[in-house]
Amino acid sequence: MRELKWSSTEKAVARRCFDRALQRELNEAIQSAKEMAAKIGHASELWELEHHLTELRKEIDRKYDYRYSRLLQVFSDLVQEGRLDLADLLGMSEDKLQYIRQHSEQSAA
Amino acid sequence: MRELKWSSTEKAVARRCFDRALQRELNEAIQSAKEMAAKIGHASELWELEHHLTELRKEIDRKYDYRYSRLLQVFSDLVQEGRLDLADLLGMSEDKLQYIRQHSEQSAA
Repeated sequence: MRELKWSSTEKAVARRCFDRALQRELNEAIQSAKEMAAKIGHASELWELEHHLTELRKEIDRKYDYRYSRLLQVFSDLVQEGRLDLADLLGMSEDKLQYIRQHSEQSAA
Repeated sequence: MRELKWSSTEKAVARRCFDRALQRELNEAIQSAKEMAAKIGHASELWELEHHLTELRKEIDRKYDYRYSRLLQVFSDLVQEGRLDLADLLGMSEDKLQYIRQHSEQSAA
């Protein structure tokens, strides 16, 4: 994976898909935090919210790793989670799409 | 401070004042978290909320230390912050009240 070349078009497609999926996930995180906060009635739920946010932040940091050596696996995971569609990635070379297709099916299995 | 004796009455007064101040501070923390969360429009504010909660939790843990060897200093700090009134502590021995009075004035100075 490290030796794959990325054309300018592919980089643009990758950046757009990555940013869009990340933004969508951040928006979901904001929404879930607002809902949790609105329901807090007891201090323990305050620290649950803190813990929830910490886990979310670590998970998002871990998942959204924009290094070309990692990007195909990132996209495979996003496709597997239903956060990205293979159709979104059109413009990438066939070998990259095939990697993502195969690995998103493997992780789902 | 470690050698002071605490009567049952003093322990009861201390426990009531401690719990009430802690509960009040937790309620304020819940309120501030709800207000921060409701205003979140951008992911950076989500992580600011996380950071705010972490700091709050550490500060509250640090401040509310119910060991008899620490309690007079805890009450001095609470009086200094306006979270507790000397009148709330009536029932405690004069030497304890005097310690709290002096130390709450010192920390305020």
